[in-house]
Amino acid sequence: MAVFLDGKETSAKISEELKSQVAALKAKGIQPTLALILTGTDQYSIRYVNIKAKRAEEIGIATKIHHLEKTTQLELTSLITILGADPTIHGILVQLPLHEGLNEQEVISTIPLVKDVDGLSQFTMGKLLMGEDCYFPAGVAAIFEMLKRYSIDEREKHWVICGMSNIVGKPLAACLSNRKTIVTFLQKDDPRITEYTKQADILVTELFKKHAINIDGVKNGVVVIDFGNNYEGKKVYGDIDTEGVSHIASAITPVPGGIGPLLITMLLSNTVKAASY
Amino acid sequence: MAVFLDGKETSAKISEELKSQVAALKAKGIQPTLALILTGTDQYSIRYVNIKAKRAEEIGIATKIHHLEKTTQLELTSLITILGADPTIHGILVQLPLHEGLNEQEVISTIPLVKDVDGLSQFTMGKLLMGEDCYFPAGVAAIFEMLKRYSIDEREKHWVICGMSNIVGKPLAACLSNRKTIVTFLQKDDPRITEYTKQADILVTELFKKHAINIDGVKNGVVVIDFGNNYEGKKVYGDIDTEGVSHIASAITPVPGGIGPLLITMLLSNTVKAASY
Repeated sequence: MAVFLDGKETSAKISEELKSQVAALKAKGIQPTLALILTGTDQYSIRYVNIKAKRAEEIGIATKIHHLEKTTQLELTSLITILGADPTIHGILVQLPLHEGLNEQEVISTIPLVKDVDGLSQFTMGKLLMGEDCYFPAGVAAIFEMLKRYSIDEREKHWVICGMSNIVGKPLAACLSNRKTIVTFLQKDDPRITEYTKQADILVTELFKKHAINIDGVKNGVVVIDFGNNYEGKKVYGDIDTEGVSHIASAITPVPGGIGPLLITMLLSNTVKAASY
Repeated sequence: MAVFLDGKETSAKISEELKSQVAALKAKGIQPTLALILTGTDQYSIRYVNIKAKRAEEIGIATKIHHLEKTTQLELTSLITILGADPTIHGILVQLPLHEGLNEQEVISTIPLVKDVDGLSQFTMGKLLMGEDCYFPAGVAAIFEMLKRYSIDEREKHWVICGMSNIVGKPLAACLSNRKTIVTFLQKDDPRITEYTKQADILVTELFKKHAINIDGVKNGVVVIDFGNNYEGKKVYGDIDTEGVSHIASAITPVPGGIGPLLITMLLSNTVKAASY
């Protein structure tokens, strides 16, 4: 029977550690500060940015929300440039997607590497791929942190990544390309997914499809990280049939309560690191 | 019996096309120009830069070689900054490895995206991974060009990449993460390589080991791209036992004369593109 990788408990532990680190920084006169930039009026984005700010404040990180309901490319990139040069700001997060008409590529490319605590700029991605020092995107950091906390050895394993999003699959593959691992990746709509998931020692899914993979799609002892977040009314399901797969997996992240709760925590961890330099 | 993918012939064809494109640019008053920066006194690097310059001149690209036998980080990055701002320079190539004491990461990160015709800066790598427009590194461009010229369909295939160097394996995987493909990659010293090469529809190797893979390590109909360049005296061998594998492969790049001859050509192709904007 699989160990359930508990994201809530793990997140709570890490948050306590971060709280101490922030207190230590404050004692040295450093107030870790995160700037959150939000464009448009999408209610989900507004709510999510507010949750990020609240979670940051809870561990002692100060936040500055810049909500630009209507903005231009120039205003937005100018704001990032100003925040980039401001020594009291340690991290800059731009909530994606941007509102219509703004060029996401250009905007995120203006975030300076040392403040890219969201880890999603092209420069950060390039450094991830080259194996150079940079902030890991929250999803990637969350995976490694979870494995570490549960003492799951990730080396010399065959990872299978299903779904190549800009925020999880791609940076994860980039990162693993520098490690002693074997990696197979597929697009989320590939019809042959289960042929490959069966090979996985560590399986990471972001398929946007409830219970797309069941016990027939995995091998004994697999470690499963499920980024699925599939709503049916108010109930949320993973990409994996957690209950079924848990009979043969060695470890699995439940949905809800698995990898999800770690995401904001890892953003905050990056911010604390950024303030520590 | 496999088709031999002829790099010399393909390179000659592309060079002819580039010659016409350069002539057309010159007729519009644009002289495509490539700056080549060389540090140290390594004879192999000096020779290779000179060959690149000669090949460029042959198709009408002007070259400026900056040979800094002894230099500092500051002098080198200042030179790149000046060349980056010079409108008569279309491409900047920094020959790697740099001489001892110079920080390669920092140096290549100063090459502006629009002049990074070698495609190896972190910003270019990040854009490759995100599927954004940029110059492909020569090795990656050479693979896609070779497949295109021989009408080999690369979509919905299972690619297996053996060896994750900064110049071939990593950018290739990054690039493929945006396409409808399945990709498996492994480090060059992974003991389980042949378990995975047998799955490949398209096999790319950079193993630095003569005939590391023979007929038992591939499946029927495989397309093989061999970046091996293993010298025994004056004779060069690929990573693949070309003769043996050719009995069941559908296509294979010989060594010598396969993918190698395309590398400089793709650099020149990027330079001509850079001059065309």
